[in-house]
Amino acid sequence: LGLLVSALLLGFLSVIFTLIWVLHYREGLGWDGGAPEFNWHPVLIVTGFVFIQGLAIIVYRLPWTWKCSKLLMKSIHAGLNAVALILAIIGVVAVFDFHDAKNIPNMYSLHSWIGLVAVILYAAQLLLGFIIFLLPFAPLALRAILMPIHVYSGLLIFGTVIATVLMGVTEKLIFALKNPAYKDLPPEGIFVNTLGILVLVFGTIVFWIVTR
Amino acid sequence: LGLLVSALLLGFLSVIFTLIWVLHYREGLGWDGGAPEFNWHPVLIVTGFVFIQGLAIIVYRLPWTWKCSKLLMKSIHAGLNAVALILAIIGVVAVFDFHDAKNIPNMYSLHSWIGLVAVILYAAQLLLGFIIFLLPFAPLALRAILMPIHVYSGLLIFGTVIATVLMGVTEKLIFALKNPAYKDLPPEGIFVNTLGILVLVFGTIVFWIVTR
Ligand code: HEM
Ligand code: HEM
Ligand code: HEM
Ligand code: HEM
Ligand SMILES: O=C1O[C@H]([C@@H](O)CO)C(O)=C1O
Repeated sequence: LGLLVSALLLGFLSVIFTLIWVLHYREGLGWDGGAPEFNWHPVLIVTGFVFIQGLAIIVYRLPWTWKCSKLLMKSIHAGLNAVALILAIIGVVAVFDFHDAKNIPNMYSLHSWIGLVAVILYAAQLLLGFIIFLLPFAPLALRAILMPIHVYSGLLIFGTVIATVLMGVTEKLIFALKNPAYKDLPPEGIFVNTLGILVLVFGTIVFWIVTR
Repeated sequence: LGLLVSALLLGFLSVIFTLIWVLHYREGLGWDGGAPEFNWHPVLIVTGFVFIQGLAIIVYRLPWTWKCSKLLMKSIHAGLNAVALILAIIGVVAVFDFHDAKNIPNMYSLHSWIGLVAVILYAAQLLLGFIIFLLPFAPLALRAILMPIHVYSGLLIFGTVIATVLMGVTEKLIFALKNPAYKDLPPEGIFVNTLGILVLVFGTIVFWIVTR
């Protein structure tokens, strides 16, 4: 389907835009307690928590996987979600470490509150998914009862992640753009607003695919 | 169901929190080109675009409406959505008027881009819903084909509105809190972060109710 291809394309483009943002407009990448360390935060989050999580969610719907065994598909779904969690955690550690190095307080913003809750719920979702749907303990009847909840909570977390990204992008643009300010809409402002739109449209397509 | 009651309660509480924010912590309400005019923006948006839209979406699921005729239910659904649109438009006019009075540029932020698109799509959704599902022209078969799209796009817009609110709240806290700054988490910061959580949980419950 063209939809699947556009999802892959948009997710990929979001990652590229984030890289161009931090490498071209910002200070690049590094693990030095400075801005280059902060920059790992958006890069790892958009790559892992948005793109790879989005892939994991639609992977059962990719036609070229329909000949694969159920166990293989589950392992890919679980594996991608595990990779996404690890990248998200490193991305969050980067911003905590940056804050500590710069003596900026932790956990003051709505962005950080919702973001941290999303990471914790995501870890719980991964663990529960693993125990219930991959390990051979849960009876089929229990699996069937829990599946709609698994899908609802998975999509809820994914939607919350998209909202958290939009808040984070907004904060960073306000903090980073002075002279010309964000208000004066310099090229970086237009570029990163566009990144925000890309992430939102990626989320939209993932939702559409999965609710068909 | 307890869920429906908690949805109503949370939506109501979000409106109350927004009022306490602008009346107690901020400059109150007025239409004077100053901060009191800006304050209509969050009040009208949370009241109309979040609470009333949320009500409109779950209204078919309220048990005490199940004895009502289909036409009456449709009229309530359409009517609530129309009220929500009008409040949202006045809320957006308030912030444009405030920006013009203060010589702040328009439409520079990701928040404003996504927010304006959401208002426009919402107006289109309302118009299409009216033409297709309320006026007696569309044949039943067409209605049946378009209903899943109506539900998907309605929920997509609602989710986007929640995300836009979270971005708007974040911006306002960064702009308004200096000395102590947002970073230092003054009481207003904690209070309004909590408002953000309330709005998100309200959205979560509305989604849960409607996807059962
Ligand atoms: C779901 C994705 C994301 C999560 C879970 C997340 C999580 C967090 C957390 C927990 C903090 C607090 C760190 C501390 O207090 O020391 C934080 C800070 C921050 N994040 Fe994110 N973040 C996400 C996406 C993004 C993105 C895409 C950006 C874009 C640049 C961003 C920008 C920021 C900024 C500027 C801060 C520092 C200000 C603050 O504490 O709010 N975030 N993030
Ligand atoms: C944080 C991690 C996870 C998230 C966000 C998540 C999310 C989702 C979502 C949104 C769906 C619906 C997909 C669709 O309808 O095509 C789904 C399906 C499913 N998930 Fe997960 N999941 C996670 C972890 C796991 C784990 C670890 C397992 C264990 C194998 C698992 C097993 C399943 C199964 C069996 C399905 C049903 C596939 C089917 O339609 O046949 N999930 N998951
Ligand atoms: C879905 C709900 C919302 C929509 C559709 C929306 C729409 C808009 C639009 C179109 C603008 C641009 C006005 C201009 O350029 O002159 C704007 C600005 C603004 N809004 Fe909202 N808004 C929403 C919710 C909120 C909320 C709840 C707050 C919280 C206080 C808020 C805070 C702001 C702020 C601070 C600005 C000025 C900075 C900027 O232009 O981004 N918004 N809003
Ligand atoms: C912006 C405005 C609108 C939005 C956001 C919206 C959204 C929604 C949503 C989310 C649902 C699913 C509700 C559920 O499953 O219980 C729904 C159902 C429906 N809507 Fe709308 N809607 C809008 C306008 C309209 C209008 C103007 C009409 C015309 C009467 C309409 C007619 C219907 C009908 C007939 C249903 C199906 C109810 C049922 O389950 O029997 N909608 N709408
Ligand atoms: O482990 C599984 O659980 C679900 C189903 O049994 C519950 O609906 C599914 O498709 C699996 O492979």
